[in-house]
Amino acid sequence: MLISCPDKPGIVSAISGFIFEHNGNILESDQHSTNQHEGSFFMRISFAEDTFRLSEEELREAFQPIATRFQMQWHVSYSRQRKRAGILVSKYDHCLVDLLWRWKIGELTMDIPFIISNHPNLEKLANMYGVPYYHFPVKRETRQQDEQRMLDFIGEQADFLILARYMQILEPFFVDAFPQRIINIHHSFLPAFIGASPYDQAFRRGVKLIGATAHYVTSSLDEGPIIAQDVIHCDHRDAVDDLIRKGRDVERRVLAEAVRLHTSDRVLAYENKTIVF
Amino acid sequence: MLISCPDKPGIVSAISGFIFEHNGNILESDQHSTNQHEGSFFMRISFAEDTFRLSEEELREAFQPIATRFQMQWHVSYSRQRKRAGILVSKYDHCLVDLLWRWKIGELTMDIPFIISNHPNLEKLANMYGVPYYHFPVKRETRQQDEQRMLDFIGEQADFLILARYMQILEPFFVDAFPQRIINIHHSFLPAFIGASPYDQAFRRGVKLIGATAHYVTSSLDEGPIIAQDVIHCDHRDAVDDLIRKGRDVERRVLAEAVRLHTSDRVLAYENKTIVF
Amino acid sequence: MLISCPDKPGIVSAISGFIFEHNGNILESDQHSTNQHEGSFFMRISFAEDTFRLSEEELREAFQPIATRFQMQWHVSYSRQRKRAGILVSKYDHCLVDLLWRWKIGELTMDIPFIISNHPNLEKLANMYGVPYYHFPVKRETRQQDEQRMLDFIGEQADFLILARYMQILEPFFVDAFPQRIINIHHSFLPAFIGASPYDQAFRRGVKLIGATAHYVTSSLDEGPIIAQDVIHCDHRDAVDDLIRKGRDVERRVLAEAVRLHTSDRVLAYENKTIVF
Amino acid sequence: MLISCPDKPGIVSAISGFIFEHNGNILESDQHSTNQHEGSFFMRISFAEDTFRLSEEELREAFQPIATRFQMQWHVSYSRQRKRAGILVSKYDHCLVDLLWRWKIGELTMDIPFIISNHPNLEKLANMYGVPYYHFPVKRETRQQDEQRMLDFIGEQADFLILARYMQILEPFFVDAFPQRIINIHHSFLPAFIGASPYDQAFRRGVKLIGATAHYVTSSLDEGPIIAQDVIHCDHRDAVDDLIRKGRDVERRVLAEAVRLHTSDRVLAYENKTIVF
Repeated sequence: MLISCPDKPGIVSAISGFIFEHNGNILESDQHSTNQHEGSFFMRISFAEDTFRLSEEELREAFQPIATRFQMQWHVSYSRQRKRAGILVSKYDHCLVDLLWRWKIGELTMDIPFIISNHPNLEKLANMYGVPYYHFPVKRETRQQDEQRMLDFIGEQADFLILARYMQILEPFFVDAFPQRIINIHHSFLPAFIGASPYDQAFRRGVKLIGATAHYVTSSLDEGPIIAQDVIHCDHRDAVDDLIRKGRDVERRVLAEAVRLHTSDRVLAYENKTIVF
Repeated sequence: MLISCPDKPGIVSAISGFIFEHNGNILESDQHSTNQHEGSFFMRISFAEDTFRLSEEELREAFQPIATRFQMQWHVSYSRQRKRAGILVSKYDHCLVDLLWRWKIGELTMDIPFIISNHPNLEKLANMYGVPYYHFPVKRETRQQDEQRMLDFIGEQADFLILARYMQILEPFFVDAFPQRIINIHHSFLPAFIGASPYDQAFRRGVKLIGATAHYVTSSLDEGPIIAQDVIHCDHRDAVDDLIRKGRDVERRVLAEAVRLHTSDRVLAYENKTIVF
Repeated sequence: MLISCPDKPGIVSAISGFIFEHNGNILESDQHSTNQHEGSFFMRISFAEDTFRLSEEELREAFQPIATRFQMQWHVSYSRQRKRAGILVSKYDHCLVDLLWRWKIGELTMDIPFIISNHPNLEKLANMYGVPYYHFPVKRETRQQDEQRMLDFIGEQADFLILARYMQILEPFFVDAFPQRIINIHHSFLPAFIGASPYDQAFRRGVKLIGATAHYVTSSLDEGPIIAQDVIHCDHRDAVDDLIRKGRDVERRVLAEAVRLHTSDRVLAYENKTIVF
Repeated sequence: MLISCPDKPGIVSAISGFIFEHNGNILESDQHSTNQHEGSFFMRISFAEDTFRLSEEELREAFQPIATRFQMQWHVSYSRQRKRAGILVSKYDHCLVDLLWRWKIGELTMDIPFIISNHPNLEKLANMYGVPYYHFPVKRETRQQDEQRMLDFIGEQADFLILARYMQILEPFFVDAFPQRIINIHHSFLPAFIGASPYDQAFRRGVKLIGATAHYVTSSLDEGPIIAQDVIHCDHRDAVDDLIRKGRDVERRVLAEAVRLHTSDRVLAYENKTIVF
């Protein structure tokens, strides 16, 4: 259960009391308040379903009065219901290879209904893992229609989307269809090197660390809420190709971490930032 | 409030209900269960004192029934009551310099009633920060008596002790006087390089990382519960002196982190491990 | 060119003079001396072949007088001659998946003549990358013969071997056949947690970092020269399964780095340590 | 000896031959070429003075023909001649405390002729370490004159300057007086969060890492060649004050590293980047 609401006394007590009353056993709980007076309250609480007496629907109904009293935004998800992740890629395979492998061995508990690409190149890889692959060419001149077709195709098939180095900018209407449910990997330590060719930018600037950032996509390029970031050391010996090589490792690790956090409902976006429980 | 008890349903509800009932507002709470069935439950919960209706004594009394019901070990501490940290050093000053400076600028909220050393060297440093410095020589032949004198001197002056590179092994009776309340910094990534001269050992082994470990002292040398650890990269160019230089940075950072965690009651020791909230 | 010899004045001058004299252009050079008096000298120097006037054989002959004068151990390798890496695995696929992918995209410049396993499980993966897979069962009672058969099979096919989580201890005669040419990945920060089940050991000890170590195999278990190491943070929330998950990322990264260094002749083993240029 | 010149064959040979001819023994040497054809060549080579037959002046004269032939920019420095570092601070003491302590224990081999501040606050600290402290107030309206007075005071007293959180922007004429000889610590991972209040900026952006950057000062704010950078993880629990606290640790470490590299002549600036040997 993920909850956010204005902070005031009694929230934890109300929630935990509710769970206990219906025979739930709390497995994990974590909360965060932005500040003490008139701040916001955020909570993730997970409890065992086996002993819990309420069905999904009953829970929704029974909890509503508490939610109303505290003006909560809340949703509950069940670990037995795997989220469905649609993946978008272009030509680079390192993030896709990594996601598919982690998914196959059970590190990422999700389903992958489809892989969409604006290039045909990675179909064989998708096949190896038994995931349907669809080629949706996108042209600059017809981007609106191209993306609309893609969106129509996706329909209700996916709970969230992963841009695993999808090298196209998505139109606002597309982004709006998956609010805070599109995860992108940007190959720099944002907000440094926003935009194109961050490794070239990093090389020219002569930085001593390069990084990667996984974030939710908003209509502002590379400015959505950051979920995970990491860096790796580099030095003057590293040409752009070396930065790319080192960066691949950081990118795929950071993206996988963000996906893992998202699929286990550990991320709450708030004011263009994230709370990661 | 730090709590540990056998895990069963209703604990969080009982605690948060109790706090709410007496008008406390929960600021932070974090819990951990070792496993779901017949496991242990650990919790740190902090709430604002200003609105809370119970005094220290009233709290103790009013909470006792809950504690009894769930077989809790618990204690409550007030952030307005700074812990008193007695510091023991030998000749190396890097950890002491760092602790004193962090303490002076308010990074470590504690009092320092005394610094004890088996050498006179660091008295001037202690004076600079206005902390009383006592020279307690320790000789191999008279260690028992020497430490007993030290212990008698300390008496009730300190809530916990920091071994800031105190290069003596403490006798079991001394350790027992401060159970899980003596923090030591060992200059290796334990359990690698237990014992004397870890940097020499690290050099001979040719490791590519060196580290430091802050842990609670138990009667088994370097085997107490680990509070914090970190490492730094090294390579074949690093002679032992370079390892010592690099290691100083890690040591003081790790020790300061452990002290910060301890002073803010974020550490629970359990089965020779720690839970760090 | 990799060189080691007793340190004395004139070595760099002699080598660089030799290269210049035969029209080679030095691309990279790095040296290391263990200490200033009566120490050892190590050097890696790479120069462009296109303008160099000596063939492989001529070089060997022409350089010998210098080598003799300075008592050098030396060998030269050509970047156009890719090393041949035989891979040994058991059932865990994370290191193998990673090596094969890095190899395929050109990150690891080597050939892979075969993959050997004591289990049949990973054959499909090998096939996907077009690498021959051979199943060599090893039984405790017949280990000597089993390994002898393996060694006979390998013959002259491989320049070095990679144990990509090969969960068997190799017999001394096998190790001796590839002196400092077998790279193993151990799933701990050596010398901590030598031997079996390091993640279980790490969990029980309650460390706050777990690591991985790539090293050359010698006849002493887990005690050969360390090539690369890295760590990742963990805490009390990490069960053994989480340590294994986090560790996989470190293992594959560290192993790949060690293989990359070895294939580009950047590693010199010396007194059970390595110099990594 | 630090050397940069257009890359062509024979440079290493000429330099090492020269050193050998005059009985020098090379202790360390490292080189870097920006690319193979028509690129630039950079080298740091250190050799023992005790056996070397040329005096400082003789060396200058004898080496000049080689320098001319290869169009070298070069300079030689003697480890027995400690560089003189003038330090500029404002009110924050963490970098200054750290530099002074490292200097006192011999980690930074340099002299500190003076500390200049636009505030009187840190005089006591300077006195503790026996370093002269001068208060030079700087006002917005009289900045030109104020800095000129400072510059006149400094005169020939310092080989380079350290801005240890000196919170004033230096005028171009001041910067030009110490080309690539003023080291600044910026409290962010540049180029992210250029300018004022980077921790506030970092907090608002919700980054998951904060960093620090030591760089040479040029007339473009925060855009000079980067010498060293590092980062530390942070999360949603970190308020601006926590970022400041964590950042202090990174700042002082990164600044000290940059100063150490500079004082041991390991840094060559080149095209707004650095080569760090």
